[in-house]
Amino acid sequence: MTMRQQYASDNYAAICPEAWEAMQEANVGSAVSYGMDDWTTRASDALRKAFECDADVYFVFNGTAANSLALASLCRSYQSILAADMAHIETDECGAPEFFSNGAKILTIPTEGGKLTAEAIRRMARMRTDIHFPRPAVVTITQPTETGLLYSLDEIRGISAVCRELGLKLHMDGARFVNALAALDCSPADMTWRAGVDVLCCGGTKGGMAVGEAVIFFDRTLSDGFDFRCKQAGQLASKMRFLAAPWVGVLRDGGWIAHARHANGAAQRLHEALKDVPHVRPVFPVQANALFLDMPSEMTAALRERGWVFYEFIGGAARFMFAWDADYAQVDRLARDIAECARDYRQDAR
Amino acid sequence: MTMRQQYASDNYAAICPEAWEAMQEANVGSAVSYGMDDWTTRASDALRKAFECDADVYFVFNGTAANSLALASLCRSYQSILAADMAHIETDECGAPEFFSNGAKILTIPTEGGKLTAEAIRRMARMRTDIHFPRPAVVTITQPTETGLLYSLDEIRGISAVCRELGLKLHMDGARFVNALAALDCSPADMTWRAGVDVLCCGGTKGGMAVGEAVIFFDRTLSDGFDFRCKQAGQLASKMRFLAAPWVGVLRDGGWIAHARHANGAAQRLHEALKDVPHVRPVFPVQANALFLDMPSEMTAALRERGWVFYEFIGGAARFMFAWDADYAQVDRLARDIAECARDYRQDAR
Amino acid sequence: MTMRQQYASDNYAAICPEAWEAMQEANVGSAVSYGMDDWTTRASDALRKAFECDADVYFVFNGTAANSLALASLCRSYQSILAADMAHIETDECGAPEFFSNGAKILTIPTEGGKLTAEAIRRMARMRTDIHFPRPAVVTITQPTETGLLYSLDEIRGISAVCRELGLKLHMDGARFVNALAALDCSPADMTWRAGVDVLCCGGTKGGMAVGEAVIFFDRTLSDGFDFRCKQAGQLASKMRFLAAPWVGVLRDGGWIAHARHANGAAQRLHEALKDVPHVRPVFPVQANALFLDMPSEMTAALRERGWVFYEFIGGAARFMFAWDADYAQVDRLARDIAECARDYRQDAR
Amino acid sequence: MTMRQQYASDNYAAICPEAWEAMQEANVGSAVSYGMDDWTTRASDALRKAFECDADVYFVFNGTAANSLALASLCRSYQSILAADMAHIETDECGAPEFFSNGAKILTIPTEGGKLTAEAIRRMARMRTDIHFPRPAVVTITQPTETGLLYSLDEIRGISAVCRELGLKLHMDGARFVNALAALDCSPADMTWRAGVDVLCCGGTKGGMAVGEAVIFFDRTLSDGFDFRCKQAGQLASKMRFLAAPWVGVLRDGGWIAHARHANGAAQRLHEALKDVPHVRPVFPVQANALFLDMPSEMTAALRERGWVFYEFIGGAARFMFAWDADYAQVDRLARDIAECARDYRQDAR
Repeated sequence: MTMRQQYASDNYAAICPEAWEAMQEANVGSAVSYGMDDWTTRASDALRKAFECDADVYFVFNGTAANSLALASLCRSYQSILAADMAHIETDECGAPEFFSNGAKILTIPTEGGKLTAEAIRRMARMRTDIHFPRPAVVTITQPTETGLLYSLDEIRGISAVCRELGLKLHMDGARFVNALAALDCSPADMTWRAGVDVLCCGGTKGGMAVGEAVIFFDRTLSDGFDFRCKQAGQLASKMRFLAAPWVGVLRDGGWIAHARHANGAAQRLHEALKDVPHVRPVFPVQANALFLDMPSEMTAALRERGWVFYEFIGGAARFMFAWDADYAQVDRLARDIAECARDYRQDAR
Repeated sequence: MTMRQQYASDNYAAICPEAWEAMQEANVGSAVSYGMDDWTTRASDALRKAFECDADVYFVFNGTAANSLALASLCRSYQSILAADMAHIETDECGAPEFFSNGAKILTIPTEGGKLTAEAIRRMARMRTDIHFPRPAVVTITQPTETGLLYSLDEIRGISAVCRELGLKLHMDGARFVNALAALDCSPADMTWRAGVDVLCCGGTKGGMAVGEAVIFFDRTLSDGFDFRCKQAGQLASKMRFLAAPWVGVLRDGGWIAHARHANGAAQRLHEALKDVPHVRPVFPVQANALFLDMPSEMTAALRERGWVFYEFIGGAARFMFAWDADYAQVDRLARDIAECARDYRQDAR
Repeated sequence: MTMRQQYASDNYAAICPEAWEAMQEANVGSAVSYGMDDWTTRASDALRKAFECDADVYFVFNGTAANSLALASLCRSYQSILAADMAHIETDECGAPEFFSNGAKILTIPTEGGKLTAEAIRRMARMRTDIHFPRPAVVTITQPTETGLLYSLDEIRGISAVCRELGLKLHMDGARFVNALAALDCSPADMTWRAGVDVLCCGGTKGGMAVGEAVIFFDRTLSDGFDFRCKQAGQLASKMRFLAAPWVGVLRDGGWIAHARHANGAAQRLHEALKDVPHVRPVFPVQANALFLDMPSEMTAALRERGWVFYEFIGGAARFMFAWDADYAQVDRLARDIAECARDYRQDAR
Repeated sequence: MTMRQQYASDNYAAICPEAWEAMQEANVGSAVSYGMDDWTTRASDALRKAFECDADVYFVFNGTAANSLALASLCRSYQSILAADMAHIETDECGAPEFFSNGAKILTIPTEGGKLTAEAIRRMARMRTDIHFPRPAVVTITQPTETGLLYSLDEIRGISAVCRELGLKLHMDGARFVNALAALDCSPADMTWRAGVDVLCCGGTKGGMAVGEAVIFFDRTLSDGFDFRCKQAGQLASKMRFLAAPWVGVLRDGGWIAHARHANGAAQRLHEALKDVPHVRPVFPVQANALFLDMPSEMTAALRERGWVFYEFIGGAARFMFAWDADYAQVDRLARDIAECARDYRQDAR
């Protein structure tokens, strides 16, 4: 009834053992509701420790809400949000940021592969200043990007410098933040507030939890009223301990990073295995836990027939996204199947 | 670190065994995200079976969202929602219904104890028809009410008859629906669609789940686009199986009702035990899992000093709310403590 | 085709000569749009001069928008607005403040005749501080009230002192501001910023203009982005000169005040004339341009039969509202008709 | 103090005589407010007669509101609006459609010169059907376009056929509708409901009024609640007669069309006069009242020095927009100045 293995999305994965065990520990007796419980305190403290920073931490139900609420708190309805053209908040949120902010406009910037540059942000932010144009208030970057690319620390610093220069806030959509962390092998602090990020939406679900993301305000002056904002928007969990405990679980023994490293490794492993396979070409460099493959539609069809599950990206590329539970033996089998499909394709094409 | 027993709210309680076990069963391998998985189908089917009706079922994260989204789908921003003056959506949602509906006005009707009557609804709905007044579109009733009272089936039928007459939809806030079910000992169908309820927000969290409520559209023509509405509003869980499986768990062997009966029993037990205790008076008849006690403030203070946790209701009454995990021995101990506090109070008063 | 005289509302009145003439003067050649024209500058300057203050001035189309936009700029969606139970924004705006603010809740305070008191504001503002309750951010008072009553300067100062104490902003709904000005015979500055008002919505339409209200921010730090807010909300007139010029017209030779004095005088005149008429009783003291009369329903019906047009207030009182164009001879005729209806009623009653 | 002549925008123009006279006629005695007056009835009837259709007509204050309200009524917040990339609602409304609709997403379609095609609409509408993508509900076309181009009747019919096929509503942004009417020399009915347009926002301001646009629902089932929607959104004028009377004025003796023909003629006249002028090239065919000229930046600077006022279009083209009051002698003088600037530029360039 359940799939054994797939690479459609990292949110197809189950709950990782560390998160599960912490929930189990938390599932004892009564606990004060709405985040006034000990688990919420412990989870917030664990994140503050991990980020080496006295940040304000909020736990909400999912990424749609985390990003939309954070962005809404960083702008007014008549302002705008600068984002890459491939940003999830633009392409896959069904108008959620506009809904939560009551009309803030997402101004998309054309990119190569979904990565914004400091220069492009400056250009867009300065384009117009008239009353008919929503004044930019915040920049959002996705780390890693929807295409599996990474912003280097230098790139983030460059972007935040432009933000400071232009009076813009910097938001990081970190649905897969931990995969970036594992890939860049730097500290959470270095990738965020030390590089100038104001607010991070730090993904829990894709990292192995059942439900829940953390919204982390490094600049605490920006979080004023955010608890009420969450409440009004239906994002204040009553039994908050079950959103919080998993963070304690994944952070206490390094499970968080270890799982991300494993997921990234799967993408790298498939990438390596396909190096000499013809008709198959990575669309983007493989930097985190995703591999986008350009291949003939006959091949993607053949792969699907063999039972593999994956998304099709705009332009037809096959997206393979690896979660904490990726089975390397299955990845190897996938590589073999792709190679076979490539061979069959070549023969058919003759 | 965790409380042993409290009666502040039923959302202080842990996850009940049936919900937990189902989550554990669901936590195997991959599952398609966003509700396209088997557990979501099974849970929806289980609810449809329980309600003997081919309803449309949606799982969202919490009650704030369930009620607000349901109400938003039943009216337009320039219309109004008729509710009791004590309705949770009016008193404790920090403007959530107004936020989700983009400005629909809640018109409150003065009540005795939070229960609407057909006559009061008719009067309010007909009060004004001018352009400056938001036309009523939907009536919401809470079953059981925030005060622990029950609408009888006849009362619900009477209210729905007025709704039909006036072209209004009928919404039921069932955060503690199962407690009403256990108390009235009727079928879910009899208390809802057979009595004329259009949409039910059926509470999961207070009934023993970690997170999640079910929005059930008995009139399926009303649910058009509700999935997109949930998505936009940050209420579409990616790992939906963990919101759905608990419903399978509590419904399959009668755990849902049994727990509610147990919770109701605790309220009744405390009520009985206090019958002859002086200075203590139930504010409302005890019909579900809540007991509101009017007592001198000296007594509530004394009880708190003894470690008991409970909310204070408007007007100063002490609210004791019992969950699925209420320990009857503790309830008895609470009764004894109240009796002792009453005795002490009498002596002090002398 | 047009009515000769009525007292239903001051917005039934035509455009006053001063406003009309200024529009005519403005209707020459081209003018830069969206408020960048000379007339807008002149009108803003005229208001700044009248209020003896370097305020930020914005012209919007109507009172619904003026109040709703001003309130939206003074709170966040998850906060609340304290208002009298009879406040127009609560009773007659079809959810506009909730719409413009995206869900801010209006918390109404029970009043005698629609006037808030400092004490009642403090009590409501301090009532709750929990996360489920929208934190008060702004207080709104209507001057004169919807019932035709005036806040004295002392009362306004008392209210603003409480606002300062509690961190609340003070908004004045001045749809009929000039009638209060004429009645209290004080300076605009004394009634507003010197008494602690932060933002005034200053009515133009009811004072004799075709369309348009002025939103005046005495605390200029509060107006940041208000121009963009107006634009987004469809309240930025392209041919702004025609909203601005009338202000120049009514302010330059004292027409504004003179008309208000005339309107107030009509209310007073009718009031005086009815002093000894039986069966007729003013519901509120007559302080501005309104007279609310309690009389038997047979009498209101008889008056309507004689062609008089007026609104019925909650509770059945007849509201007579006088505009700048009130014809005193007609007022006298109305008084006579009321007296005759009273006499007839007495005879019928025998 | 006022400009003598400019071509920056047709909303720089004054009120045309027909509109002014009608306002003057309307400015007599009292009139019922909020659109219950005779002038509003007469204006609505005049429009119904002009469009040969029993349409529902609403008068609102400006184009931002007209389009945003109409679009909001044609979709739900979680749906999308298909528009040309150059559509005013996308480029110049500061997020108004998103604000009024509470988050509906504008999906822009790349165009040549701002004109949508049936094929491009079909492609975009069918692109995605998943839950993360806001389902298209309405198509909007601007007639004439922001670039001064016209949709032929056949093109409109083709677009509406696709709309019907896909279940989309068709909205026409007619800020300069009358200029299209004059240019295509067809009946209002032919260009709208007979061609399949569901709702038209028919511009008044740019056509010579002080303030006000008409929203015309040809499909009356779509207008349910639109009056309340206007009220809530601050778009219900109390002294409606002054928004309505100008429509009576411009429609009764053909002034509406005559003025538009005159404005269109000015664009054509300038276009003709520049045919042989070097360094100057129309960017788009001249079909309505606009002329976009591509010319060296030295020339636009020189023209500005000579006192001419015009907007710069994206890409640097000079936009000359002609209103009802365009003075042909001035247009000729502008043509001579452009020619002189071109000559000077050539000499400088040598």
